[in-house]
Amino acid sequence: MEKIAVWGFSWVPPFAQGLVRDLRVRWALEEAGLAYESRWIGLEERNSDAYRHKHPFGLVPVLESSDGTLIESGAIVYAIAEQCETLMPVGLRAEALTWMFAALNTVEPPVWNLFVLDVLHQGEEWAKLRRAGAVDEVKARLAALSECLDGRDYLLDRFTAADILMTTALRFIRHTDLVAGFPRLEAYVKRCEARPAFQAALRNQATGYARNAPIAA
Amino acid sequence: MEKIAVWGFSWVPPFAQGLVRDLRVRWALEEAGLAYESRWIGLEERNSDAYRHKHPFGLVPVLESSDGTLIESGAIVYAIAEQCETLMPVGLRAEALTWMFAALNTVEPPVWNLFVLDVLHQGEEWAKLRRAGAVDEVKARLAALSECLDGRDYLLDRFTAADILMTTALRFIRHTDLVAGFPRLEAYVKRCEARPAFQAALRNQATGYARNAPIAA
Repeated sequence: MEKIAVWGFSWVPPFAQGLVRDLRVRWALEEAGLAYESRWIGLEERNSDAYRHKHPFGLVPVLESSDGTLIESGAIVYAIAEQCETLMPVGLRAEALTWMFAALNTVEPPVWNLFVLDVLHQGEEWAKLRRAGAVDEVKARLAALSECLDGRDYLLDRFTAADILMTTALRFIRHTDLVAGFPRLEAYVKRCEARPAFQAALRNQATGYARNAPIAA
Repeated sequence: MEKIAVWGFSWVPPFAQGLVRDLRVRWALEEAGLAYESRWIGLEERNSDAYRHKHPFGLVPVLESSDGTLIESGAIVYAIAEQCETLMPVGLRAEALTWMFAALNTVEPPVWNLFVLDVLHQGEEWAKLRRAGAVDEVKARLAALSECLDGRDYLLDRFTAADILMTTALRFIRHTDLVAGFPRLEAYVKRCEARPAFQAALRNQATGYARNAPIAA
């Protein structure tokens, strides 16, 4: 993988900054020590034919490299991790992939659902009526995840690509104190976020937003 | 992979029959020509310590084999596909994994959301208020997916494991006419569902439900 470029949104409102899924790809690349450039697509331009040619759903991230074009944060992180012992030792591939799917298909759905309610549809009547049930679903999932982390610092015996997806999934409810309700889980997220590669990825994404921010009226 | 056993729920109400995610694993095993046995866990027993030991989130599917225990339908289908050219030719692995994540992390979320509204929370006030917006989100995703299938019978140049995950994700809105609104997509689902392996998987799951059905009052 050479001449890597990562596509993200050129700017998003503060409530979404640090949550957009290209963060996962930047984090994986930083862990792997792979150099990359950033490309930015505007929220309005993402449905253009030109961009849809890169990403059929008009989403981010897209990773372009000498090996071709990849979409889907899970698949891109896996592709990077395949080339990097730090992210996914060969002997742990099946286990890492299991936890990558668990992060995106078992933990993220209820967590994302609460983000949608609280942030994207804040104040709407249906969101108010639905909230208590949605919170219960999140708590049940977090409780099970917290059990999995009993006696261990990461999802597997060491940090892997799965922790990138799990940590970034849990960040969708950073506006709540739900993760803090499970001290083991809160410590896990802090441990992952303290990694220099995460901090570099976050800075990288934020730098783009700062440069591309709309001029205040 | 030898001595394979697949865990599913022993019985679910008719609205969920043919939708539970162990169907994906059965389908993949049938395509791969791998023999397997069924194990059933009751909806009430799934939170027992014994079952949580197999699946920390108390969900299905679980696949047990001579190689160990696996969870997460996406990861299990990938593990089966790795051993089977029919499901995932070596040269198409990265592409297949991309579409597996697209099925579970880009298409399934809005589709599942509508299933939750219409089926699991049918008649509730919040579900009524939310429905129009949720339908719009599904339509946007289906429209993009339909474009991807322009001029092709499957997500990649031939049938792969990704089609198993995409077809079963789209089945969550079988109670609506939304897929039928995109003739190319409807034909795709019918094409995949017509495969003998899918039919065998469906029969297999239904046989368990019939045997374990609660005695009517």
